[in-house]
Amino acid sequence: MNKLVGADLFFKCENFQKTGAFKARGAVNTVLQLSSDIESVVTHSSGNHGAALAWATSLREINSFVVVPTDASPFKRRNMERFGATLIDCGQELESRESVLQEFLKQHDATFIHPYDDARIIAGQGTATFELLESEQNFDQIWVPVGGGGLASGAILAANGMVEVVCAEPALAKDAYLSMQTGYRQPPLPPVTIADGLRSSLGELNFSILKAAKTRVALATEDSIKRALRLVFEMMKIVVEPSAAVVIAAMLDNPSLVAKRVGAILSGGNIPGPHQFD
Amino acid sequence: MNKLVGADLFFKCENFQKTGAFKARGAVNTVLQLSSDIESVVTHSSGNHGAALAWATSLREINSFVVVPTDASPFKRRNMERFGATLIDCGQELESRESVLQEFLKQHDATFIHPYDDARIIAGQGTATFELLESEQNFDQIWVPVGGGGLASGAILAANGMVEVVCAEPALAKDAYLSMQTGYRQPPLPPVTIADGLRSSLGELNFSILKAAKTRVALATEDSIKRALRLVFEMMKIVVEPSAAVVIAAMLDNPSLVAKRVGAILSGGNIPGPHQFD
Repeated sequence: MNKLVGADLFFKCENFQKTGAFKARGAVNTVLQLSSDIESVVTHSSGNHGAALAWATSLREINSFVVVPTDASPFKRRNMERFGATLIDCGQELESRESVLQEFLKQHDATFIHPYDDARIIAGQGTATFELLESEQNFDQIWVPVGGGGLASGAILAANGMVEVVCAEPALAKDAYLSMQTGYRQPPLPPVTIADGLRSSLGELNFSILKAAKTRVALATEDSIKRALRLVFEMMKIVVEPSAAVVIAAMLDNPSLVAKRVGAILSGGNIPGPHQFD
Repeated sequence: MNKLVGADLFFKCENFQKTGAFKARGAVNTVLQLSSDIESVVTHSSGNHGAALAWATSLREINSFVVVPTDASPFKRRNMERFGATLIDCGQELESRESVLQEFLKQHDATFIHPYDDARIIAGQGTATFELLESEQNFDQIWVPVGGGGLASGAILAANGMVEVVCAEPALAKDAYLSMQTGYRQPPLPPVTIADGLRSSLGELNFSILKAAKTRVALATEDSIKRALRLVFEMMKIVVEPSAAVVIAAMLDNPSLVAKRVGAILSGGNIPGPHQFD
């Protein structure tokens, strides 16, 4: 992989994290700070934040509810249920998600935990980069995938200006790229990329952190995402999901942006096992 | 996985080994012992031994030739070529393989390296178990997949009577199971199991080592192999091939044979990446 990308790469394998993604970090950091009278939390998620929140709340016997778009990955739905979440279906559109969430909050005594636009979540996700910077020295860059910006803004805070954080984003969901170009937070693009964890647009707090750091965003085509996914499987022998492969895809698509000694966060690995032998 | 199997499991992940399988161990141990006037070696292989031999010979600038059945995995063919092997096609039958090999040896000045019936190969494969026993203490058992018996006989020598080595074999390729039952080395069964690395029958030297140790063989159905493969992907997030998943499948199919604290060798991970997103 080093030869293909033209850099010395060091991977933080968050596919091996609890619940199969870095999201466990922000969820547990948030849930452990909740006051003891809270009995239920609710969030919206395509899967990984929902599973993380379900796992984290199970440590404190708090109930978790997750508003999930109907087109979410069946594997991620099962993963959320495995950790104890109660799923609430909504449509694919942002408006449907918001209205279903508001309706739920009206009828239930539950605390809303935003998947990324929350300082506690951002601090938790930042620990992935913090650990990576502790494990190896002299990084030129840290590359992270960007969707809502929880992982990316946490990385920027953890790097604390000492190492550049570069964001990788699917070209079909380039709202973060556009936000950094225009200086204004862009609305989400239609959810067409296979990187299902990166379809949402930057949160307010997340955008302000990325903007202050003058963060560069590297785009990846869908073909490159698929290629990177296969490369990780076939050469590194680990299971990652498309949203994680975006980091390698963006490096392959933007060789001039890649420095010499690079840390990269492989954000998660929640996809189903092979059926080619069935 | 511990809960599903009902044991404390410790995995030796040979899918992360050079060339993607434990075979690199025996190949390099053998090739580094060859006399300096040897210019070419030849072997027969469904893929993993061939790739390992190609890699090992590339360290000494020796040429490698591999007799490969026409139904071998295209991924494994590419893997052998990637490490520099020259492939020679043969039919699926044992007779075709033997005749193609003999014809090659008549026409070329090449040294034949058997994939498993060779003391140097067995000693090399044994280092996987040796390292596993060094890394953790107080194992009750070590489980290994068995095909030709290189890994299994090496494990028995490395365990040296202090830990039981249990072999896992596809029920559709149960020649080792039958050999241990009857006391006579059985011929190979038709190559129908999806565990393509385990279709060959025990070598002579390998059988004598298994027999002396009164080795138990646990069988796995094809359905269990497929299930175990998915479990490893989905819960452990690592890529293994069916021949490696056989170890977990055999444990799931034979719970009464599984001790409490168990080492297991995941033999390789040479299968193609996912195409579900294409």
